[in-house]
Amino acid sequence: MTQPFHPPQRTLMGPGPSDVNPRILEAMSRPTIGHLDPQFITLMDDIKAKLQWVFQTKNALTLPISAPGSAGMEACFVNLLEAGDKVIVCQNGVFGGRMKENVERCGATAVMVENAWGEPVDPAKVAAAIAAHPDAKVLAFVHAETSTGAQSDAKALCALATKAGMLSIVDTVTSLAGTVVAVDEWGADAVYSGTQKCMSCVPGISPVTFSPKAVEVIQNRKSKVQSWFLDMNLVVAYWGGETKRTYHHTAPINALYALHEALCIVEEEGLEASWARHALHHKALAAGLEAMGISFVVDEPYRLPQLNTINIPAGADDIAVRSALLQEYSLEIGAGLGALAGKTWRIGLMGHAANRKNVLLCLDALENVLAGQGVAINCGVAAQAAIQVYKNT
Amino acid sequence: MTQPFHPPQRTLMGPGPSDVNPRILEAMSRPTIGHLDPQFITLMDDIKAKLQWVFQTKNALTLPISAPGSAGMEACFVNLLEAGDKVIVCQNGVFGGRMKENVERCGATAVMVENAWGEPVDPAKVAAAIAAHPDAKVLAFVHAETSTGAQSDAKALCALATKAGMLSIVDTVTSLAGTVVAVDEWGADAVYSGTQKCMSCVPGISPVTFSPKAVEVIQNRKSKVQSWFLDMNLVVAYWGGETKRTYHHTAPINALYALHEALCIVEEEGLEASWARHALHHKALAAGLEAMGISFVVDEPYRLPQLNTINIPAGADDIAVRSALLQEYSLEIGAGLGALAGKTWRIGLMGHAANRKNVLLCLDALENVLAGQGVAINCGVAAQAAIQVYKNT
Repeated sequence: MTQPFHPPQRTLMGPGPSDVNPRILEAMSRPTIGHLDPQFITLMDDIKAKLQWVFQTKNALTLPISAPGSAGMEACFVNLLEAGDKVIVCQNGVFGGRMKENVERCGATAVMVENAWGEPVDPAKVAAAIAAHPDAKVLAFVHAETSTGAQSDAKALCALATKAGMLSIVDTVTSLAGTVVAVDEWGADAVYSGTQKCMSCVPGISPVTFSPKAVEVIQNRKSKVQSWFLDMNLVVAYWGGETKRTYHHTAPINALYALHEALCIVEEEGLEASWARHALHHKALAAGLEAMGISFVVDEPYRLPQLNTINIPAGADDIAVRSALLQEYSLEIGAGLGALAGKTWRIGLMGHAANRKNVLLCLDALENVLAGQGVAINCGVAAQAAIQVYKNT
Repeated sequence: MTQPFHPPQRTLMGPGPSDVNPRILEAMSRPTIGHLDPQFITLMDDIKAKLQWVFQTKNALTLPISAPGSAGMEACFVNLLEAGDKVIVCQNGVFGGRMKENVERCGATAVMVENAWGEPVDPAKVAAAIAAHPDAKVLAFVHAETSTGAQSDAKALCALATKAGMLSIVDTVTSLAGTVVAVDEWGADAVYSGTQKCMSCVPGISPVTFSPKAVEVIQNRKSKVQSWFLDMNLVVAYWGGETKRTYHHTAPINALYALHEALCIVEEEGLEASWARHALHHKALAAGLEAMGISFVVDEPYRLPQLNTINIPAGADDIAVRSALLQEYSLEIGAGLGALAGKTWRIGLMGHAANRKNVLLCLDALENVLAGQGVAINCGVAAQAAIQVYKNT
């Protein structure tokens, strides 16, 4: 007979999942009720309203997809695209490449706008692509590239799409609640996110929102959405109806308890306060890392406070360092991904994990492990540099 | 500021979700760890082994899809089918119709074999369809129709597919752990299930298993799987690898803690004991219902013990009765679905909820509510009839 699984208590400072607030874990363990229970319907309404607030939108079609962020991405593409459509896809990391995969699997064509990994998407390049492909239906880009830690100017990019009469699809998986996401102000048409980043919730759910313009496109498709599970025309009968809710699929009840509690926590803190907290702890962490002699992949104006991508110091063994952090400190930081694998580490400061204790733990642990493995770094200065930031704030 | 959501304590005797074992809720609330944490990898391996056991298969490609049963269904169809393929789809309820939707959204053609709702799939009709369409690639059917409570002969149907050189896709959402599911003995090629039925787990995850023959088809496709999220060629790099696990999407960590605990519980009881328990409590419930004068939709040999579909007694108001059960007894039973909406109720006895206390609660509550609403039923005999079954066993 096998034993129950008792996970270790980690400190999660990778690219997500981030440390989950214990309040959320407790909320998730409350008794399961039916997906058509009148009390569950009230919870759904409350979740929708809170998601509208966190996305900063009035979009009626705002709801959580019952699957992780990758499925949220797919929901945006399969609902907006039909075979033969053309999409301008910006790539400056792994997730732009995943967007291309999604476009092509819809039978559509992707026109790629490439930027170096670690750089933001260049609006001038996008403007040129739009001028060269005025027949494109959609402009798609990642607001906060989880593979590089770079943030792009979503407002400027969405404005280019709108001006050209195109729809926009925006990935805010890593940005939502960590840096400014303002769907209506941007004029974005289809936006997806995840729960396991700056909302500190368990992974598995993907909040999405569609503008009225996007909804019109979805309702007037010539062909059916290729995914039955993600077809917004069907999902809306369960999530969207003003009156009767019709069964589509069985909602992940307890995961939605968790999302609701996560949204309550963000609401209690306030969005501006959450953004400011992420910025503060990033500043302290960055001061410490730079004092240690470690450099960032992304130039300062484009850095995501919640995802600090750093160059692995010369002489350090990627896997040995991360293993020691995990074994000795029970601390998880993220490996590099895609083109940056083996060259970078990604240190998350997301949601509940963005706090002073974690900043100091991470700096001390990294310093001790690197020094212990004979890597040449500046010792004894990182924590003080971080503390100085807190004192000056 | 909004309040946290505290759900009522229901007794869930609908078509699922069923009452979740508190052990599972507790397991799910354990601390989140990373999806590439070495300890999580060991949990994944254990979940795979346990799923193989519960499906009664040696299939290497056996894993939980990170989304509900509807996505598990879609995973089977999008991976096996390409545009232009032909599929024989058996329909004897709602979920056969959903299979047809999936087939058509893959650009394939569905040849429908229709049976009356409440009846099992007729193997003779299937044999005739196979003879008429020898070029079909797949035979698809629902083992346990959740909309009607009828069970079909999966072994006979899979044998027809195998004999004709076709692949089989089998829906075992409601049957797994409640009645016999024996994937290898059946010779089934792609089988999906859900967690929220006879495994008493929270909803949101779909266990799937693919035979070596199915895997060969998936690996040798001419076109890419239309869903990136559900592409088994990609998912397997995370779930299947013998050595390194490659990130595909962020797994729903805590939901997998829950699934693991649910599998531990089934393992402790044993599959045969679980099937026998479902059969016993069904027999007691059926004796009580029939003593009350209530009739079943499905003929006795084909009834699912875990899902009792009964005709709404003459004079009873569907919604008023279910509302009273919920309001007065905090007891959920299921409404009819599709063609049976308004005509039937579905009483689940699934997993943790298949117990003597629930059988008697349901009989007493139904009797009191029906009598209280002036419906002509036999009073004062149902509970005794059920208790007599327990005494005789």
